[in-house]
Amino acid sequence: MALRTVQQYVESLRDGRTVYFRGARVDDVTTHPVIGVAVRHAAIDYQMAEDPAHRELATLTAPDGERYSRYYQVPRSAEDQIARSALIERATAAGGTLVVLIKEIGTDALFSLLRTASAMDANGSPEYLPRVEAFYRHCRSNDLAIAVAQTDVKGDRSRGPAAQVDPDLYVRIVERRSDGIVVRGAKAHTSVSTNANELIVLPTRAMSEADRDYAVSFAIPIATPGLVLLASAYDSTAPERSPLEFPISARHKMMETTTVFNDVFVPWERVFLAGEYEFAGPLALAFVEHHRFTAVSYKLPLVDALVGAGLLMADFNGISKAGHVREKLVHLITYAETLRGLTHYAASRSRPREYGIAVPDPLYVNMAKYQFAHGYHEAVRNVQDIAGGALVTGPGAEDLESPETARYYEKFYAGRVGIEGRVRLQALSLVRDLVASEFAGYQEVLAVHAEGSLEAEKLALLRSYDTKPALDLVRRLARLDEGGIDAPGLAGQRQPAEKRNPK
Amino acid sequence: MALRTVQQYVESLRDGRTVYFRGARVDDVTTHPVIGVAVRHAAIDYQMAEDPAHRELATLTAPDGERYSRYYQVPRSAEDQIARSALIERATAAGGTLVVLIKEIGTDALFSLLRTASAMDANGSPEYLPRVEAFYRHCRSNDLAIAVAQTDVKGDRSRGPAAQVDPDLYVRIVERRSDGIVVRGAKAHTSVSTNANELIVLPTRAMSEADRDYAVSFAIPIATPGLVLLASAYDSTAPERSPLEFPISARHKMMETTTVFNDVFVPWERVFLAGEYEFAGPLALAFVEHHRFTAVSYKLPLVDALVGAGLLMADFNGISKAGHVREKLVHLITYAETLRGLTHYAASRSRPREYGIAVPDPLYVNMAKYQFAHGYHEAVRNVQDIAGGALVTGPGAEDLESPETARYYEKFYAGRVGIEGRVRLQALSLVRDLVASEFAGYQEVLAVHAEGSLEAEKLALLRSYDTKPALDLVRRLARLDEGGIDAPGLAGQRQPAEKRNPK
Amino acid sequence: MALRTVQQYVESLRDGRTVYFRGARVDDVTTHPVIGVAVRHAAIDYQMAEDPAHRELATLTAPDGERYSRYYQVPRSAEDQIARSALIERATAAGGTLVVLIKEIGTDALFSLLRTASAMDANGSPEYLPRVEAFYRHCRSNDLAIAVAQTDVKGDRSRGPAAQVDPDLYVRIVERRSDGIVVRGAKAHTSVSTNANELIVLPTRAMSEADRDYAVSFAIPIATPGLVLLASAYDSTAPERSPLEFPISARHKMMETTTVFNDVFVPWERVFLAGEYEFAGPLALAFVEHHRFTAVSYKLPLVDALVGAGLLMADFNGISKAGHVREKLVHLITYAETLRGLTHYAASRSRPREYGIAVPDPLYVNMAKYQFAHGYHEAVRNVQDIAGGALVTGPGAEDLESPETARYYEKFYAGRVGIEGRVRLQALSLVRDLVASEFAGYQEVLAVHAEGSLEAEKLALLRSYDTKPALDLVRRLARLDEGGIDAPGLAGQRQPAEKRNPK
Amino acid sequence: MALRTVQQYVESLRDGRTVYFRGARVDDVTTHPVIGVAVRHAAIDYQMAEDPAHRELATLTAPDGERYSRYYQVPRSAEDQIARSALIERATAAGGTLVVLIKEIGTDALFSLLRTASAMDANGSPEYLPRVEAFYRHCRSNDLAIAVAQTDVKGDRSRGPAAQVDPDLYVRIVERRSDGIVVRGAKAHTSVSTNANELIVLPTRAMSEADRDYAVSFAIPIATPGLVLLASAYDSTAPERSPLEFPISARHKMMETTTVFNDVFVPWERVFLAGEYEFAGPLALAFVEHHRFTAVSYKLPLVDALVGAGLLMADFNGISKAGHVREKLVHLITYAETLRGLTHYAASRSRPREYGIAVPDPLYVNMAKYQFAHGYHEAVRNVQDIAGGALVTGPGAEDLESPETARYYEKFYAGRVGIEGRVRLQALSLVRDLVASEFAGYQEVLAVHAEGSLEAEKLALLRSYDTKPALDLVRRLARLDEGGIDAPGLAGQRQPAEKRNPK
Repeated sequence: MALRTVQQYVESLRDGRTVYFRGARVDDVTTHPVIGVAVRHAAIDYQMAEDPAHRELATLTAPDGERYSRYYQVPRSAEDQIARSALIERATAAGGTLVVLIKEIGTDALFSLLRTASAMDANGSPEYLPRVEAFYRHCRSNDLAIAVAQTDVKGDRSRGPAAQVDPDLYVRIVERRSDGIVVRGAKAHTSVSTNANELIVLPTRAMSEADRDYAVSFAIPIATPGLVLLASAYDSTAPERSPLEFPISARHKMMETTTVFNDVFVPWERVFLAGEYEFAGPLALAFVEHHRFTAVSYKLPLVDALVGAGLLMADFNGISKAGHVREKLVHLITYAETLRGLTHYAASRSRPREYGIAVPDPLYVNMAKYQFAHGYHEAVRNVQDIAGGALVTGPGAEDLESPETARYYEKFYAGRVGIEGRVRLQALSLVRDLVASEFAGYQEVLAVHAEGSLEAEKLALLRSYDTKPALDLVRRLARLDEGGIDAPGLAGQRQPAEKRNPK
Repeated sequence: MALRTVQQYVESLRDGRTVYFRGARVDDVTTHPVIGVAVRHAAIDYQMAEDPAHRELATLTAPDGERYSRYYQVPRSAEDQIARSALIERATAAGGTLVVLIKEIGTDALFSLLRTASAMDANGSPEYLPRVEAFYRHCRSNDLAIAVAQTDVKGDRSRGPAAQVDPDLYVRIVERRSDGIVVRGAKAHTSVSTNANELIVLPTRAMSEADRDYAVSFAIPIATPGLVLLASAYDSTAPERSPLEFPISARHKMMETTTVFNDVFVPWERVFLAGEYEFAGPLALAFVEHHRFTAVSYKLPLVDALVGAGLLMADFNGISKAGHVREKLVHLITYAETLRGLTHYAASRSRPREYGIAVPDPLYVNMAKYQFAHGYHEAVRNVQDIAGGALVTGPGAEDLESPETARYYEKFYAGRVGIEGRVRLQALSLVRDLVASEFAGYQEVLAVHAEGSLEAEKLALLRSYDTKPALDLVRRLARLDEGGIDAPGLAGQRQPAEKRNPK
Repeated sequence: MALRTVQQYVESLRDGRTVYFRGARVDDVTTHPVIGVAVRHAAIDYQMAEDPAHRELATLTAPDGERYSRYYQVPRSAEDQIARSALIERATAAGGTLVVLIKEIGTDALFSLLRTASAMDANGSPEYLPRVEAFYRHCRSNDLAIAVAQTDVKGDRSRGPAAQVDPDLYVRIVERRSDGIVVRGAKAHTSVSTNANELIVLPTRAMSEADRDYAVSFAIPIATPGLVLLASAYDSTAPERSPLEFPISARHKMMETTTVFNDVFVPWERVFLAGEYEFAGPLALAFVEHHRFTAVSYKLPLVDALVGAGLLMADFNGISKAGHVREKLVHLITYAETLRGLTHYAASRSRPREYGIAVPDPLYVNMAKYQFAHGYHEAVRNVQDIAGGALVTGPGAEDLESPETARYYEKFYAGRVGIEGRVRLQALSLVRDLVASEFAGYQEVLAVHAEGSLEAEKLALLRSYDTKPALDLVRRLARLDEGGIDAPGLAGQRQPAEKRNPK
Repeated sequence: MALRTVQQYVESLRDGRTVYFRGARVDDVTTHPVIGVAVRHAAIDYQMAEDPAHRELATLTAPDGERYSRYYQVPRSAEDQIARSALIERATAAGGTLVVLIKEIGTDALFSLLRTASAMDANGSPEYLPRVEAFYRHCRSNDLAIAVAQTDVKGDRSRGPAAQVDPDLYVRIVERRSDGIVVRGAKAHTSVSTNANELIVLPTRAMSEADRDYAVSFAIPIATPGLVLLASAYDSTAPERSPLEFPISARHKMMETTTVFNDVFVPWERVFLAGEYEFAGPLALAFVEHHRFTAVSYKLPLVDALVGAGLLMADFNGISKAGHVREKLVHLITYAETLRGLTHYAASRSRPREYGIAVPDPLYVNMAKYQFAHGYHEAVRNVQDIAGGALVTGPGAEDLESPETARYYEKFYAGRVGIEGRVRLQALSLVRDLVASEFAGYQEVLAVHAEGSLEAEKLALLRSYDTKPALDLVRRLARLDEGGIDAPGLAGQRQPAEKRNPK
């Protein structure tokens, strides 16, 4: 088949999956008052594939004539990664600054599995690559929505998997059978799982021999017996409220689950790692190499919205020309466009790795991610500063619908000449949802923790920096390699301009 | 009488006041599901006066034997300000990091009115001081709760009151009668007005002659005809939810209103400024001199809670010894204790001003306020970083009450050895309420905007710095006053150690 | 001829030019103990053109077979700008992190003159373009070294040229003759003028009609009568000291002059602007558009050296694995590579402007420059931190040459195992020269002020940002253009992915 | 005797001490062109004691009628520490922002030795306290200048003393004799040793049993056989130049030495620690507790000078009213006055420790030091920014003395109306010396490294923070100690206002 309709997607989610929300089993996620919002948000993906305005970017035709979602394109060049990034950015903008994610993260996982299975194949374990390739074809041909569970619940963060008091705090193999494996444990923060078709499980870190049973990767349908999805209650109020009050979060939602594996059986053809602990680290790392690039792509509409919010409120409040406001706008622009510049530059420097997959330059991806994560709260503060205290002292939707109160708000919330109270309040609602709501708290925490913490980004950054050119330069300047001979400026010079070339 | 009971306070609020919430008139604020929480939060003030553990700090005995709330003590010395600060800090800690405010802000306004009326008395307008003194006695003797309305709704922020297209965007006198004045307009962000007894109105800025009708200050009971309180809908969900999920904001709330003056009549004995535009600026400034000191005092429990949250979650997650975590804890401690050090130091440098009122050193108060406001978002980020992504992907109250889901959460949210899942989730709920909820958004916006914006603090800071010692020092070092004569190190030296003395 | 030898360049500077150094007239700049160092540093340009290792990058062949310096290539494409940037980076690395500049800045001025003269041509002043083209051919064919004087001495910075008390504080036309103009005044901070062949003068800012006489641009040989170069005395000690102690600044130097025009006559064929005040701003702006790109290119070896210094000293001191050291190295790397990423990205987005000249994307150039300037001091602090206090308490060159003292230093300055005292001291000397010397102070001040101040970069950045996409996004999210109709996620969506395309 | 004259001090330095400068033995430090400047700078101490304007602050009378330097007062109260801080601040201002240090650091060492010897006395080692007391009386009665050597040369910083490849990289006891000990090794960064009378040696860190021979403390006269002072060559040019060009550093200098112990014999009465390794840490820590407070006191004139430089140049350049300049001035003021506020607050919270010595609150001292160190480079950048590029492109002293060049400089360096070129250049010279000279580099490196690195301050800060109040607050808010019972706001409340009281 290949491309599904919105309707087909929605119906595919009525499959008996085990989902709990606020302590109660959910019969049908598609009609649930909160999770249903997440379903409709995710459906943007299928809408775009049908929409003439987006179809060209969102879909591709395979050599066999099959039309498929561009997310599933295995990137072979910088151009492929640039197009992927553009699609992710556009879908997220359609999603009101919230990533859609039902194919983005799954394909990141698939690319990392293809790369790792290819390396394992070269390393004497040929059984995995065909399985991954088969699963990839299955997902692509059926236009599936995929969730990825990577982060374990972890217990004591200073200890590895096998060193926990409770052995179930990282997902592990509890039984190896002739037809497959049985796994137990739980993963945290699994996004879009309530409304995905498949779940890919990846190891969360490098592992040692003692962690052998924890070195496991596989994929299962969401309705698999023993798989329990505990949906988060966070930010579950806005979806039930008026979009007048929550212009983003009443319409757009991503669900996270604590994902429990109650002795779940996985057949061998769906097992992609099972004890080869030395590949747990490379697989985890390959995934974040792709997923951090995906992440910096889908943060672009969010940072653009912060800039836009600053520009709009500065204008509506009549303070665009104030020196400190211009200073804050410069800061917001620099913040947003440094992210864009580094993201696009990283994409343009993509290089082929295992399985011929083009990987964006990890140094620049990690720098982009780090700068985004590090500067997010200051950007939020600047927007709050420009918008004003009315962000948290203003009316609710009903106030603007009741004639008794609406007349006051319309009169007294007027902005600069030409900006009526109702218009300014509409803008304030958006900005509040963006920077002073539960959704805003969600974005702050995601900035710090999603796709690896600030600390993880720093380590990745350090690891991906080639120290040689900088060290060569200072050693030459200090005459360290020349026994102190006072050579002229050019002698012994390495060629720094060349150093940025592909390795 | 003097000290009221909680019950007397609550009953005093059933007076027919005009309050709207989400478009509907509120019959009784004390039983309203949202505003009622704010009433009970405010009652902490009356509880403390009765509580043996707090009575000594919270109350004083007048020479005539009357026992009264310490907030009403007119500060005459550094010691008075230190005690006032300690009371504010303790009440705010009792309020779960949220200021109680029903006497704090009102007495700040009273002190500024006493100072300004005293200056006006010396300037040929003797009628105001007796009125302010009488109103002060009324409030103190009846142990009243007071709100203060200062910030006008403002319209185009680049224009002054008289230059707005709609003349009502700043509160103004529309009629002067033999028995009083009639005022019209609206004030924004009026805190605790729904549950106060009296409302003091102050001008929001310095004014020119053209703004004469806008130079107005007065006090009225909340139930005065024509006074309409439009309660904000912000963060109105948590008060109706479980304290298990929102440990702070389900129990503690401050209400803000857009405060509308529909041609409100104010008798002369309640009018404190009526056209003397040259005193509008001094009165506005005197108020913030007191109120910013109050503010830095009541922010102390909030910043302590951020430090505590960081320490607690670092411990529960088992990461206390990680280098980057220690770095973040150092940052949090420095943030909190710099605020405390500067606040206490400012109090210790209080100097008597008009009416003999001791005013904390404005340079250090403004620096404390500025550093608090400037660093708040980074402190929040550090707490979010230490606490982990589970802040926004975890369970709701019902999940912990339902056996079906509770067993998973209890098992899989365990922390370091000895910290069970339920305990860690209880801590995570608190931290989420503090740094990733609507309440958290409220605190972020308040950090930037309450008691004057970041920019207002900068200007006040610059104004309160005595440039002479630093300029003398560099002029001496540059030999600027000596015609270039190369004098020895000591010649012409001013005595820098003395320069910090009272002016 | 086209390419000159080092010898030809040096000899061309013995032309009777009027140069003063520390109050005394300089007979021959090439043999002067301080300025001679600057001459030899500048000669790197001519060395590179001869050196087989650099010739290909440093030179080009014209259609007529003339071999000429690549700096003179008029950029027509992104590729041209990328190659120009690579040449500037390599030459600066050869210059020990100090830009060579004798062709970089002059060609930036030539490109801006070609663009402006082309616009003036289209605007009814056709006389200038042929003059600029002729002067361009003269410089290129004779392989000349060019200085550029732009910044006036300015007097009261809050007033424009014509509003100064002394009319000479900006350079101006004092007489218009049939054969040319006579100019008077002084320019500050003119780099490489002591060792250039030609001086191009540009206006420093936009001008009004009252400033007509100040709207002047021209070019003159350095030995022109009336042109007085007052060489700066800054950092004039190191060039006379041992390279053992000052590995960079004993060998590499750039001279700045206060450049005085004592009623200097300029013939018409060398006059490029003379009263057309409305083109003063565009010319000044066009120059900085090119020159800031040049600047971010030549800062790359400097920031690489900071990274290298951090890496080297961390290793030599045995602290590479300490958490806080890794944190500082991450910071240094991010600082350096963000500059590189934004610079290269800006080059790749070059677009043709007047005269068909390709101009790098000014938004990204200004962001690169701003981030460089804003973060330089923190990068310096990180290097100082890693290197240790020995930066400022260690030996001089003679200490290492005298056996009495050398034996102590060699023993007691040993670093980690394998790093002898002498080697560590050699590294410390380099790092000191880089971050704790007069040369280091020079680099700090240049970071803040060269090629426009921090504030100028902010304004340029704001001006070059296209606000439409961000504003469109938030307007759509707030439903501001739809009368509040609650349209589905995709309706009315502009296409954000396209928004980054060329305008 | 007690108080010495300047002459007596200077003569006391002609004692045959072994000092090397730039590879050559120095016959007489008092007449040396570089070290002589340091001697005259140090003499400020003795000048102040004689000067009627300073005598009262600088000296005290003992019960026996002896007049002595106040530095030698053993602090018994907050008032004593406040007076000590005031004296240090005033002496440093007299020293042109450079600390005098010949008594400041020595008395810090004496106080820490008295405290540690007192603790050792209580711990079964009574021999040390009388020795320290005798040495204290010797110094005070003879009004001696004292240097302190603490930091060892260290070699591989990741290894302790006994783990170095060369055992001499930390100072150690190589022989224990009946009449004393013999020590070998070298200390780095010893300030004022060239012009002190005595040298106190302290251990640099906590030590383990293996480091027993390295746990050594003692005092010796500078002219002791085997003690070799290798004076640093850093910043040795300015002292030989004109004060017109270097207004601070041509007149004021502090010398550091690498201090070599060539098997130096120390008699027992001068030995204060000899193998009691468990007291090495406490002694090192006690010293920095005093010395960091001294340091934050003597940094005050330096930060005041940065503020003054900013104010002065903003005025002279005519940019005082520019928004970004005001922003930078606010930043400078906040930087300087936060240091002052925290320093004074720490002093006011002094508490008695061992030997009854009053110790300033270490939390606030370390925060003051940390904020000073962390913000110094940004403050420097702000001053450079306001002052302008002329800092590094201006004239030398001779330029202003030669009529040929002076006339240009006087004309063209004029500032705002009323500020002549010569006056502005005089100011620029001062600012350059402060922020863009070798002296400026010295201050930058000292900010980061002196009195313990940034990292040492962070650790000390963390150690001196009492975590209980903050943890109690969050535990109460999270109901962690109450089994989840939903108690009202006040129940179980600890009393946070009290928590700041003395422990």
